[in-house]
Amino acid sequence: MRNHSHCPHAWRNPQHRGRMWAASPAFRRRLFLLRSLSPCAAALPNNTSSSSSSPSTFIRLNAMAASDPVYEADAEAVVRRITPPLDRARHKGQAGKIAVIGGCREYTGAPYFAAISALKVGADLSHVFCTRDAATVIKSYSPELIVHPILEESYSVSDGERESVSSRILTEVAKWMERFDCIVVGPGLGRDSFLLDCVSNIMRHARQANIPTVVDGDGLFLITNNLSLVEGNSLAILTPNVYEYKRLVQKVLNCEVNEENASEQLTALCQKIGGITIMQKGKADIISDGKTVTQVSTFGSPRRCGGQGDILSGSVAVFASWARHFLLTNEYPTDKSVNPMMLGCIAGSLLLRKAASHAFEKNKRSTITTDIIEFLGKSLEDICPAGH
Amino acid sequence: MRNHSHCPHAWRNPQHRGRMWAASPAFRRRLFLLRSLSPCAAALPNNTSSSSSSPSTFIRLNAMAASDPVYEADAEAVVRRITPPLDRARHKGQAGKIAVIGGCREYTGAPYFAAISALKVGADLSHVFCTRDAATVIKSYSPELIVHPILEESYSVSDGERESVSSRILTEVAKWMERFDCIVVGPGLGRDSFLLDCVSNIMRHARQANIPTVVDGDGLFLITNNLSLVEGNSLAILTPNVYEYKRLVQKVLNCEVNEENASEQLTALCQKIGGITIMQKGKADIISDGKTVTQVSTFGSPRRCGGQGDILSGSVAVFASWARHFLLTNEYPTDKSVNPMMLGCIAGSLLLRKAASHAFEKNKRSTITTDIIEFLGKSLEDICPAGH
Repeated sequence: MRNHSHCPHAWRNPQHRGRMWAASPAFRRRLFLLRSLSPCAAALPNNTSSSSSSPSTFIRLNAMAASDPVYEADAEAVVRRITPPLDRARHKGQAGKIAVIGGCREYTGAPYFAAISALKVGADLSHVFCTRDAATVIKSYSPELIVHPILEESYSVSDGERESVSSRILTEVAKWMERFDCIVVGPGLGRDSFLLDCVSNIMRHARQANIPTVVDGDGLFLITNNLSLVEGNSLAILTPNVYEYKRLVQKVLNCEVNEENASEQLTALCQKIGGITIMQKGKADIISDGKTVTQVSTFGSPRRCGGQGDILSGSVAVFASWARHFLLTNEYPTDKSVNPMMLGCIAGSLLLRKAASHAFEKNKRSTITTDIIEFLGKSLEDICPAGH
Repeated sequence: MRNHSHCPHAWRNPQHRGRMWAASPAFRRRLFLLRSLSPCAAALPNNTSSSSSSPSTFIRLNAMAASDPVYEADAEAVVRRITPPLDRARHKGQAGKIAVIGGCREYTGAPYFAAISALKVGADLSHVFCTRDAATVIKSYSPELIVHPILEESYSVSDGERESVSSRILTEVAKWMERFDCIVVGPGLGRDSFLLDCVSNIMRHARQANIPTVVDGDGLFLITNNLSLVEGNSLAILTPNVYEYKRLVQKVLNCEVNEENASEQLTALCQKIGGITIMQKGKADIISDGKTVTQVSTFGSPRRCGGQGDILSGSVAVFASWARHFLLTNEYPTDKSVNPMMLGCIAGSLLLRKAASHAFEKNKRSTITTDIIEFLGKSLEDICPAGH
């Protein structure tokens, strides 16, 4: 066998990976999840019995990017695998407790969309930590959310109070943090410097507590200017759109976005930031953790109304926490090397696309974000029926 | 050929225009849009291949105003022509970013109706700039809108603060202005003198930035008392109702409204203010930019519930920005002489009428503005299917 150290992209060679794994006694089980993420499955000898699909349906080469092939994830299989069964013996909270850090004087829709989407995907509890101004409004959108009016913007804090207010905010959030299965940082966060400083503290605390963290919107503005907040955090997920991705590439790789070699650049970006997972949103969502790269390109909707990214971040938070729980508790230890953050991204991407497709089918050009959220439930049910 | 300089209304003579254009090598292409706006098409020899309608369906003489004939626009053709295709490769914002300047202590419904209508017609992002009091309420109507609580009324600003507050407000709006494809000034603006002074500054800034501006409601009160805000601005659209139009005519033409010669008076009004577009709302909406006059008289609904003008201003904003983009980017340079503001008015007028008709059919006397907004999507889909 060739020395892989001279071939950094050997993992993308199906035959290579196939041979490596075939030597492992536990490869068959591991295959189920990993073949959703990498080209390896194409060369693997047998299909597992846990799925009725043929290997060719798990790995599909994207013809649009043939110069830099990215393999399509079997996102439906991922959703089915990580979504927990609905067990009558379970208690409130066991299907997931999510928190969104966002919502300021200017923005209230984004954190609402993220938080309500988490519930609609199937989480049991969804919290929002936002400013006082935003809290009243977000509460009024829905009685389903638990909204904490604790963040402050510069205009409401005098210079002398900053330290004590910042400390109080962290204490308030910290006492909840251990309860959360995942937090989402960024939807409608705004760019106030004092508020972003406080949120940096919250992110550091979440990391210490090993809480998975999805970073989107203004959270990406924050971490692009302070990469240490996510560097080396394998539980961090970034979900940049085209503009946010461009800024991230410029800052981290010191170059422009290279569309010809999109997956290689994304992989390099993940590696440079160190072990985080990035979902580059676009016509196809390309997902990497620096080791593996895959994509979800199921067609959703041609509408690009603002707010869809918030649905995605809330959904990814739920799926990532489900995937993490699934991998931590399942009986096959080999599954533990699979990255649950990748699975969360794949599942969230597919679900948004399915829901957007249904919403567009019904509402056409007038489709707005609320319409898409209404279809999250049906979309998940179609893939993974809840049963009785 | 007669000397047109001696015949200011020669353009309204079908035979004249037909001969002039037939001499132009590019007339056929230009025809498609222009025949929607003027009587010329009646004399033109052929129909273009880009539409399946016969020439007679494009131009219909309004029998009700035979003493001062106004030609009916082929509004459906206009809607179909300017509405952008839904392209899967597009990103958020590319289908339009609209801002409504309005909303004060007294009024919150009007700016909401205008802003949500913009989204329902197909814009990607819709902002509202209003007072703090109004913002909380407008945000709570819908998480889809981005609401900026930055305007101030006299009661909340001391005399000494006025200059600095006014400057701060302009700075806040100015940092967003370049992103907008069109702004709507007036829905629910109120008549507070300090607030109107601030909005005057915003209008001047929008004009410098070449942002199309639809003026309705209290915005018309503002500009009627300060015509310089719109004089000579070819990107300005006024949408007065019968009372607002009466005040405008009195102020600008120093006479009363002349219903017998409605289109001539409207044309004169546009010319006097200098190149702006006016849509005189009524049983038929008569539209002119001082050069061309046309109307939309498709029957809508006999209900006259408040708020329909706000739907119209938000819809016109979207269509005007689409028309402008279409004309700026299309491959046929001759189309560039068509006034996109006229096209925006025609399309907005038709869509409101169609939606109002559907809503009335369903709700009869109890039809309210929200019911009409619900039918914007279906109405656009009927005219211009989004496809899959």
